[in-house]
Amino acid sequence: MDIKARIETALAGAVDAAVTVGNPPRLTAAIRYAMFPPGARLRPRLCLGVAGACGDDRPHLTDAASSAIEMLHCASLIHDDMPCFDDAATRRGKPTLHVAFDEPLALLAGDALIVLAFQTLASCDAQDRLPAMLRVVSEAVGMPRGIVAGQAWEGEPEPDLARYHAAKSGALFAGATMAGAAAAGHDPDHWETLGMRLGAAYQVVDDIRDVTGDAKTLGKPTGQDAALGRPNAVDELGMAGAIDRFNFLIAEGLDSMPACPGRDTLRTLILAETDRFLPKSQAVGAA
Amino acid sequence: MDIKARIETALAGAVDAAVTVGNPPRLTAAIRYAMFPPGARLRPRLCLGVAGACGDDRPHLTDAASSAIEMLHCASLIHDDMPCFDDAATRRGKPTLHVAFDEPLALLAGDALIVLAFQTLASCDAQDRLPAMLRVVSEAVGMPRGIVAGQAWEGEPEPDLARYHAAKSGALFAGATMAGAAAAGHDPDHWETLGMRLGAAYQVVDDIRDVTGDAKTLGKPTGQDAALGRPNAVDELGMAGAIDRFNFLIAEGLDSMPACPGRDTLRTLILAETDRFLPKSQAVGAA
Repeated sequence: MDIKARIETALAGAVDAAVTVGNPPRLTAAIRYAMFPPGARLRPRLCLGVAGACGDDRPHLTDAASSAIEMLHCASLIHDDMPCFDDAATRRGKPTLHVAFDEPLALLAGDALIVLAFQTLASCDAQDRLPAMLRVVSEAVGMPRGIVAGQAWEGEPEPDLARYHAAKSGALFAGATMAGAAAAGHDPDHWETLGMRLGAAYQVVDDIRDVTGDAKTLGKPTGQDAALGRPNAVDELGMAGAIDRFNFLIAEGLDSMPACPGRDTLRTLILAETDRFLPKSQAVGAA
Repeated sequence: MDIKARIETALAGAVDAAVTVGNPPRLTAAIRYAMFPPGARLRPRLCLGVAGACGDDRPHLTDAASSAIEMLHCASLIHDDMPCFDDAATRRGKPTLHVAFDEPLALLAGDALIVLAFQTLASCDAQDRLPAMLRVVSEAVGMPRGIVAGQAWEGEPEPDLARYHAAKSGALFAGATMAGAAAAGHDPDHWETLGMRLGAAYQVVDDIRDVTGDAKTLGKPTGQDAALGRPNAVDELGMAGAIDRFNFLIAEGLDSMPACPGRDTLRTLILAETDRFLPKSQAVGAA
């Protein structure tokens, strides 16, 4: 099974286990709407990549970890899109969940997906690895350094921008790399920097797309950073500076990878993924 | 340490571990506002009671379980009070969180508390018991039978009332009894019925208070069920019928308890708690 099919099979299985007979039908529909068809699935791909580099000796744990990370990502998109935050109309090229359904259901679907991530981890039959998996996944989302804390910085009168960027952009990518390592029985803390740097690099790509106005690729409205007064790497560094920063972050992330059986394979895989984000001549893989 | 002090110490420790240096300050303030000063702490009291009946041989696991359950309860109150649901102005005798702070922060504080519950479980050094604890806590909140599903039934055009009541009123009480048993190394499934019946009984008390208009005891506005078109046991059964139902549910719950070292002590404790909810002459303990 290729990596894409593996991710979708695992996610469908984890969703089906909870969204079953006896679940409120509109909530079932909302959960499926939020999870499928797939977005880029960057975080689960990264989670599987790291687990593979670490041996992936218990694939069902890796599948649970990658599904949990993607559910948490989708939950954060649902809540961030709501009227009290971005009030976004489209996401992944279709109406946002609160537009397609309603605001109460969007709030609940986000809550339900957060919990489903942990139900999915709970389904792992892996006493020895579950504590580390649960720790890294929950910390990637929670306080003080996870994505919920990152979103909260946007409402602070004096935001700590370094913490904001790390929590908002890096934390869940770090959750993906660390959960992949933990699922394969390796020390997750050795994989934090890779995730943090890739997350920061992806934020630069998102900033570039927001400015260049490629709404189709982005799957959501462009120009939002300027409209909402949010920091944007292109505004701060210029386009060339933003691309330099992207390449620097990718290189720093790759250099941080610990020794493991599949280190070179993972490096190649990450370069292939990141090359797709920017014009080929400017990507680090072309150097 | 008495049970009340034990619950507060455990909760304060779990909150302090996450709401720490580097957390967004307003989010920190909102979390503390939502968690303290304490409400009735019914669910953690129940969790500790069951764990005690089962031997409570690893008290730090029981503390983590009871804290997690209370965090999830507080998270559900925050989100249920928001404008898109009950639009409630007061809770526990003070302004609701979205009124005291704002709506975005209420949404995030609820999310953060859901995640903090799982971070708290993750902090347990208990490979052997963590899987069961994580399962019962996450299922008490999630789909298809947890409190999030319960809330979602309120937005369905054709709600399944039996599932609605069980999920909305029973699931987190069952989470409390089951997590207490799991923390003490006992089979949690033997403790589900006790939690479900006590949760249903407490809902009857809540319904009575909503009708009799005891806003001070309730800590929130009364008459909300009629205003929001929600089912209420007093409307359905009359006052005497509602009290009969309460007593029946308590008795059925107590009868369901499995054999364990502290069965009689727990029975006495539950009767003492439930006696406080209704006029003495009408409570089952007076029989």
